[in-house]
Amino acid sequence: MTMEHIKKQAFSLESYRLECGESIPVTIGFETYGKLNAEKSNAVLVCHFFSATSHAAGKYSPEDTEPGWWDGLIGPDKAIDTNEYFVICSDTLCNIQLKNPHVITTGPSTVNPKTGEKYGLSFPSFTYRDMAGIQRELIRSLGIERLVAVLGPSAGGMQALNWAVHYPEMMDACIAVISGAQTPVLTSLAYLQSAIDAITLDPKWKNGQYATGEEPEDGLRLGLQLMHLAAFHYEWYDETFPRHAKHDVISTYDKAPPFTEKFKKAVSERMALYDANHYIYTARAAMMHDIARGFASLEEALGRIQARVLMIPCTSDLLFPPQYSRHVVEIMNRQGGCASYYEIDSPHGHMAGVLDTHLFAEPLAAFLEGKEGGIIG
Amino acid sequence: MTMEHIKKQAFSLESYRLECGESIPVTIGFETYGKLNAEKSNAVLVCHFFSATSHAAGKYSPEDTEPGWWDGLIGPDKAIDTNEYFVICSDTLCNIQLKNPHVITTGPSTVNPKTGEKYGLSFPSFTYRDMAGIQRELIRSLGIERLVAVLGPSAGGMQALNWAVHYPEMMDACIAVISGAQTPVLTSLAYLQSAIDAITLDPKWKNGQYATGEEPEDGLRLGLQLMHLAAFHYEWYDETFPRHAKHDVISTYDKAPPFTEKFKKAVSERMALYDANHYIYTARAAMMHDIARGFASLEEALGRIQARVLMIPCTSDLLFPPQYSRHVVEIMNRQGGCASYYEIDSPHGHMAGVLDTHLFAEPLAAFLEGKEGGIIG
Repeated sequence: MTMEHIKKQAFSLESYRLECGESIPVTIGFETYGKLNAEKSNAVLVCHFFSATSHAAGKYSPEDTEPGWWDGLIGPDKAIDTNEYFVICSDTLCNIQLKNPHVITTGPSTVNPKTGEKYGLSFPSFTYRDMAGIQRELIRSLGIERLVAVLGPSAGGMQALNWAVHYPEMMDACIAVISGAQTPVLTSLAYLQSAIDAITLDPKWKNGQYATGEEPEDGLRLGLQLMHLAAFHYEWYDETFPRHAKHDVISTYDKAPPFTEKFKKAVSERMALYDANHYIYTARAAMMHDIARGFASLEEALGRIQARVLMIPCTSDLLFPPQYSRHVVEIMNRQGGCASYYEIDSPHGHMAGVLDTHLFAEPLAAFLEGKEGGIIG
Repeated sequence: MTMEHIKKQAFSLESYRLECGESIPVTIGFETYGKLNAEKSNAVLVCHFFSATSHAAGKYSPEDTEPGWWDGLIGPDKAIDTNEYFVICSDTLCNIQLKNPHVITTGPSTVNPKTGEKYGLSFPSFTYRDMAGIQRELIRSLGIERLVAVLGPSAGGMQALNWAVHYPEMMDACIAVISGAQTPVLTSLAYLQSAIDAITLDPKWKNGQYATGEEPEDGLRLGLQLMHLAAFHYEWYDETFPRHAKHDVISTYDKAPPFTEKFKKAVSERMALYDANHYIYTARAAMMHDIARGFASLEEALGRIQARVLMIPCTSDLLFPPQYSRHVVEIMNRQGGCASYYEIDSPHGHMAGVLDTHLFAEPLAAFLEGKEGGIIG
């Protein structure tokens, strides 16, 4: 591993006008991997998924036990080869991992300079179109006017597709993994709106005015539970939290079946870094994802895209079933665009887009290089 | 329609020993359709799904706007022909529709004769194996020793399979629609445990001691929301609660996207008859459904079945995907049993087993008559 140790950098805008019409000062973190060439023509933007951060690859120090979340794809001689490309990844607004010291984000927990107090629920809604707009300012601050590609899994793919529609002249390729042009209504309601409802049901949420250490943990845990459950597939749950028939007879209400307890423990372990209000805002952004917004139709929005597009769904994905990727590819190709489709299969369901990068590293690399061999278009 | 008007009857047991070891007095409602023959050999037991009641067919009066929930299958000259069969359907313990005047059930809201107060959470857990046992007493009280068939959709199928395993000598056929031998762990956690967690998170739940009219409505609504969302398929949601891109930009937290509001209204309309504690107990019963309980393996449990079994899954079912039905059929046939499989497809997902009876009425009728033509085995 010859990759440099990763450093977090910060990018600020004095004022950014969000899609909802409000303007706020923004500071977000970002990381880069590889070197920007003299022509500034080798940059790739990677966008992170719902619960992730700008730490897409590498390690902060040799002692780190885990590398970034797409380290399987990004690095020297990997699919997104950092010998060739300069890779950028930014934190989102309202990043969920507020308590992660490596995250830099602006959101409800940020102090509003106008009032001297935390925004709380007065923080305006953001969208993944906003994230594309803020990233565009970041890119230009680095002197980059055109990207080789914008790509990412899930909410990362939502950002990449917003890039392709709104900044068509600034990129060659767009790759959306386990994602789509619009969040399915079922996904929006079942896992995103229900997670919001769970948090706001917790009396400790206090209309978003909870104090640090007195946070709506039960509501947040239920919200996470819902997202976690949608992220993998049936077989994975049957195997990971198996029933044990002898122990599943429950005599009274207060005892839960062992497979439930084991699952809840796994969810709780992920909560330490999360903030409830940031979770609400991020869930809302994912719910509202619809690249047709502002256009007469989805067809019109997709017709704006100049980049080559690759959609990579997973057969067993319960959040973004493959039909939503197929839909994008069919519309684009019918309208004379250039869209490809590569479906993977894995018991990891949605999370295959993060955990099973080996399943699509080769077609992704080929697509980045402008080749389309092996890709079902 | 020559069918008689339906009357609710009550069946009581002074004491019934539940699977958890506790004994309670039980009273449940039941309905019958058609006539029991002199030999008492034409009885069919239909079992109801999670949120339904013993009102499986017919109308209580000519003014009724809606017939029973499987009226498409049960009646004169229908698949379960009441000119030929005597059909019985009972309410479950802890029936969710506590406030429905046509429901007779025993559960947490029942007064415990030992204390003179409502059971609340001291009510013991029940299982669908218990329901089979109680129904067996009901059947025998009518002088019936053997059933032509036991069948039902979803939790009704769970009861039917428990019948087949535990009372193999009392039935010729078992038909489980959109059901399986074990509730998938994902379904158990995502829609059942999470619904329980939603109710108990509501401060109005008060550890199950809420007063009538001061009930945990928000928690129950979220619980229903989760079940409703799993009951249909993606396309159905996209079409029923469509996005309207122009209206989906949300500036502040307190406004929800219109498709969310429309969906929440639909859920709220279903809440009027429901009780939160009964919901918790029923969800727990569905979670714990595992016909392998008490046996060394699922194979051993299925090996006890003497009845012919027909499994009818729906391709787009998110609660009981077809693989769980296939699993039952494969194990049974490998072990010399007699199991058939008939898969339907519908945008209604799980609810196809209730709403789309026309899709499986013919093979179901043929199977009841002992024929297996047209059935994929």
